[in-house]
Amino acid sequence: MESGNLLKRVLVGRALRTDRLNDTLLPRRLGLPVFASDAISSVAYAVDEIVLTLALAGGAAIYLHSWEVGVGVALVMLVIVASYRQAVYAYPGGGGDYEVTRRNLGPAAGVTVGSALIVDYILTVAVSVSAGVQNAAAALEFLRGYESAVAAGLVALMTLLNLRGVRESGRALAVPVYAFLGSIALLIVVGVVQQVTGTLGQAASARYELLPAEGYGELTTLGLIFLLLRSFASGSVALTGVQGVANGVPALRRPKSRNAASILAVMAAISITITVSVLWLTRASGIQIAADPAQLRLDGQPVSEDLVQDTVLGQLSKVVFGTGSFGVLLVAITTGVMLFVAANTAFNGFPVLASRLARDRFLPRGLVSRGQRLAYSNGILLLAGASVALVLVYRATVTELIQMYIVGVFISFTVSQIGLVRHWNRQLRTELSVRQRVGMIRSRTINQVGATVSALVLAVVVLTRFTHGAGLSLLGIGLIGMGMTMVYRYHRTMDQEISLADEGVDASQVVPSRVHALVYVPRLDRPTMRALAYARATRPPTLEAVTVDVVPEATALLHEQWTERELPITLRTLDSPYRESVRPVLDYVRRVRRDRPRDVVVVYVAEYVGREGWWVRFIRDRTLERLRRGLLRQPGVMLVIVPWQGAGLEQAEQAAGEVDA
Amino acid sequence: MESGNLLKRVLVGRALRTDRLNDTLLPRRLGLPVFASDAISSVAYAVDEIVLTLALAGGAAIYLHSWEVGVGVALVMLVIVASYRQAVYAYPGGGGDYEVTRRNLGPAAGVTVGSALIVDYILTVAVSVSAGVQNAAAALEFLRGYESAVAAGLVALMTLLNLRGVRESGRALAVPVYAFLGSIALLIVVGVVQQVTGTLGQAASARYELLPAEGYGELTTLGLIFLLLRSFASGSVALTGVQGVANGVPALRRPKSRNAASILAVMAAISITITVSVLWLTRASGIQIAADPAQLRLDGQPVSEDLVQDTVLGQLSKVVFGTGSFGVLLVAITTGVMLFVAANTAFNGFPVLASRLARDRFLPRGLVSRGQRLAYSNGILLLAGASVALVLVYRATVTELIQMYIVGVFISFTVSQIGLVRHWNRQLRTELSVRQRVGMIRSRTINQVGATVSALVLAVVVLTRFTHGAGLSLLGIGLIGMGMTMVYRYHRTMDQEISLADEGVDASQVVPSRVHALVYVPRLDRPTMRALAYARATRPPTLEAVTVDVVPEATALLHEQWTERELPITLRTLDSPYRESVRPVLDYVRRVRRDRPRDVVVVYVAEYVGREGWWVRFIRDRTLERLRRGLLRQPGVMLVIVPWQGAGLEQAEQAAGEVDA
Repeated sequence: MESGNLLKRVLVGRALRTDRLNDTLLPRRLGLPVFASDAISSVAYAVDEIVLTLALAGGAAIYLHSWEVGVGVALVMLVIVASYRQAVYAYPGGGGDYEVTRRNLGPAAGVTVGSALIVDYILTVAVSVSAGVQNAAAALEFLRGYESAVAAGLVALMTLLNLRGVRESGRALAVPVYAFLGSIALLIVVGVVQQVTGTLGQAASARYELLPAEGYGELTTLGLIFLLLRSFASGSVALTGVQGVANGVPALRRPKSRNAASILAVMAAISITITVSVLWLTRASGIQIAADPAQLRLDGQPVSEDLVQDTVLGQLSKVVFGTGSFGVLLVAITTGVMLFVAANTAFNGFPVLASRLARDRFLPRGLVSRGQRLAYSNGILLLAGASVALVLVYRATVTELIQMYIVGVFISFTVSQIGLVRHWNRQLRTELSVRQRVGMIRSRTINQVGATVSALVLAVVVLTRFTHGAGLSLLGIGLIGMGMTMVYRYHRTMDQEISLADEGVDASQVVPSRVHALVYVPRLDRPTMRALAYARATRPPTLEAVTVDVVPEATALLHEQWTERELPITLRTLDSPYRESVRPVLDYVRRVRRDRPRDVVVVYVAEYVGREGWWVRFIRDRTLERLRRGLLRQPGVMLVIVPWQGAGLEQAEQAAGEVDA
Repeated sequence: MESGNLLKRVLVGRALRTDRLNDTLLPRRLGLPVFASDAISSVAYAVDEIVLTLALAGGAAIYLHSWEVGVGVALVMLVIVASYRQAVYAYPGGGGDYEVTRRNLGPAAGVTVGSALIVDYILTVAVSVSAGVQNAAAALEFLRGYESAVAAGLVALMTLLNLRGVRESGRALAVPVYAFLGSIALLIVVGVVQQVTGTLGQAASARYELLPAEGYGELTTLGLIFLLLRSFASGSVALTGVQGVANGVPALRRPKSRNAASILAVMAAISITITVSVLWLTRASGIQIAADPAQLRLDGQPVSEDLVQDTVLGQLSKVVFGTGSFGVLLVAITTGVMLFVAANTAFNGFPVLASRLARDRFLPRGLVSRGQRLAYSNGILLLAGASVALVLVYRATVTELIQMYIVGVFISFTVSQIGLVRHWNRQLRTELSVRQRVGMIRSRTINQVGATVSALVLAVVVLTRFTHGAGLSLLGIGLIGMGMTMVYRYHRTMDQEISLADEGVDASQVVPSRVHALVYVPRLDRPTMRALAYARATRPPTLEAVTVDVVPEATALLHEQWTERELPITLRTLDSPYRESVRPVLDYVRRVRRDRPRDVVVVYVAEYVGREGWWVRFIRDRTLERLRRGLLRQPGVMLVIVPWQGAGLEQAEQAAGEVDA
């Protein structure tokens, strides 16, 4: 424990006092990288997903239809971001999807969105880190084959960074986000200039012939529409992370809502610009990616199954800057690092969400409170564990993880927009100022459009990708939702039982008339002697010692020692015809209570507290534990534990005091 | 829990009162099947092991040398049984190997023998049940392929039988043992008569030519001796189980020692008769078994790899009674059932051993006491678990399990005989009667011979079979021994710390001068109100309520409620700059103790006790647990738990009371 404590200090840093909490709020320029990096970075794999899906219908489909899909995704993004801007104004104390839903649509909808968001955050980390490692592996060949382990290690590193506190991670992460934006801006500007001046080259993959995949050769109009919808659904992964800003509002500096709205606007502009420009340049330079290398032909011949296909950004940077140039390396590295930063969004958002869910009784109370470093440590650790598990199970394969990713995002989009519509309806019911009403009606309209569009996208995603992970994702959301409902019911029942009536005196406030004290004496040793001494110190009106006659020889010996030491307390022997050591005590206590129902029985037990190895619990005598459990189930009983500290406990106690949070 | 309790009643039966303990003691005619069945049954596989090992040198070796090995095994058995007869007289209260070793050679030797015996008992169950299932499968073909599952199921059944109590299982098992002895006697008598009258047929396997295995073609004299020793070592498996009688002495009727000695004599006579006669008839009827079917030739041609070779008893019964006759079925079934009965020996012996080891502090105390049915339930369950694990890992393959079996047996033989020699030496030092001394010297001589012979056999076993399982067995024994040593040290350290000095007053007996009472108030609910009321009922000289200021709003609310309800106790707020909820309380208690070192601090905490699902413990607030742990580590502190019983606890309490043992 001592070493664990030291390790914690070194890695996590000193504890922060509550009064320094305000210092950790983020300004706008840091809010963008911290909360919007997920949304911005998702364009890195969204364009690939659009191209990959269209490629099923062959190379011509990419050329012909990618712009349509791109425009569709951009339009949806405009609608969704406009919608979220209403949310952050409506709920300046935290305009996240969960908050909005819980308040406007009640706990059932809240738990749905809550579990969808939990799945999302976990997948954000898993997808982003996996994508980041695979990008890095393109430049750093030695990583190949160790992707899972490297990704898991990076999640662990990120966990530590976040346990140190939100502000430091914000600063640490701003540089890479702006570096990514800079290098992508350079790529696009140079590319567009080359295209306009007619000097843009052709991609290496342009020389392949890309055949349609089996079954996609002769698409009907309906088939084509379905494929375009599927491509659009895949491209919608660009929208993931939009909600991160709304969830993060409380961590921003004031004016929180306006800052959040600005961040959303900037984010949308950046994402749309990158998506549309990259798709345009992809088409112009003839970049192709095949879902299955078997679709590719070079001079009429099939290519090797092991062909490594670069990502769209990778191919584009080679076209624009030239293979092997510094620009290619720059784009590859900044993209990789950017994706790690995106995973960090989840580390900032998830603990806030978990804390809110816990406050609303959907999760254990341990998640409510802030850890030593003002970050919500337990939530961070939970997120890290779950995403590492996913990374290891799916061996850091982005394509498989992405399949599950989009569903949860659009469930929470849809439900929370509906919640906002209801919010504005409520506001309109009481608002009299005409000017305010006009603004509210405008907001409501935006949210109505947002809800409709998200619902449509959700329908498309579920219909076109049910067997490709959407089903699994729904199952996960359902299970988490069920778990949270169970927790909620448990907490609610307990609250009802233990909360005080507003007025009057109930049973819990009745002071018992007398105290009847018993000391449990299994044998005569120092812990028991101390229990007897402490019991005497409380000067109870009646005090007796009780022992259970399990082994007659031992009981006889005990009585002998008792007499010899002239102990000034009566020792009562309880019969135990069935050699039980616990039940006779419980029966006796019950009997005492029955005879004096208005009294309270106090049972003193000695407990040896030692500095013990992990294995000791497997061999420890369970009698005390069973006695404790049995006594606590009886009304009118108090259990007093008198500890006896074993040798070597002093250091152990100090260590425990230090790590105690 | 209710259903679990009902199930337990139905399967295990009613609890027995201690005063009925004497009724469960075994008369001699039941003692033989219960405690000697392991030793008797082991001849069933011992003969096979002798023949199998000799077969490595070809068919002629079986014919030429099996009688030598058989005589060797018989002689060793005579010596060992004579030795054990001394043990049961020397220790009428339980003349088991462990008892003898622990008393005469101290704890280190005791732990060695103890762990050797534990490994043995587990292997007895695993080997006997596996052999039984394989015998049964010879007659009941449908069992093939399900051997592991059937064996595991049988162990489970046997566990239940034994949890019901030792006498009933003794009766249930006497019939099959005597049936086995009857059918084998019939087999031998008819066989011998046939041989004498010259009508004994030849075995089906006699027509095979049995070639020497690779490397055994041209054995040197030294090589042959080594092979004979190996065969002898394998045959020594016939001696396993001899110690069962000595360990079981306390479960026999009086005169315990004489009854045990008689059982040993009868057992030795039976085992030797069966071993020698079966080997003689095996030789006469030309029975052959090959370790590897590749050694067999029929008319010069190799035989199929899938050839099913019957056991020696199976082949012999076919020779004597004729293939397909009722006699064959009788021998197969009685042998199979006998082997299950043999496994039962371990179920009778192991819990007694575990209880003794626990009494001597080598195992957890939970194993000392008798269960409801006067059997040592925990030991039975432990044995069942371990042997089922072995059966499943080794897929009920007898040959592999037997390899590990013999080592432990001969370790305990050797060490306990040495212990007995020392026992007689001690007795001789004080004994004056010449007649008694003569008897003791005779006993000592027998044990000296016994120790020497067992040591020699042990050496042979370890030398010839180290890589065939003896090594693994030694490793297991070593690990169990290490574990028991750790447990022993832990118990000894604790005993030293907690045992009272014989005279005078020590720190544990000092009665503190005053009591300072605190009530921990995390919030104002009914459990807390009850804690306050109960604390007031004890009328302590000083009483205050403390709360920790983690969330300032919550603390303000608490103070407001406090004032409103006009509670007659001061509420002290403890600062918590690092948002901890436990440490401020611990610090405050430490401060109080420092100011009044001769007082004792009593901390009252409320605990909600509900009827809860298994999953609740994962979501429960750990604050109370951490507070409890922290407080119990401080000297001069008592912790009072005031329970608040949640709804629906009444039934739960009743159920818990019923199953409480």
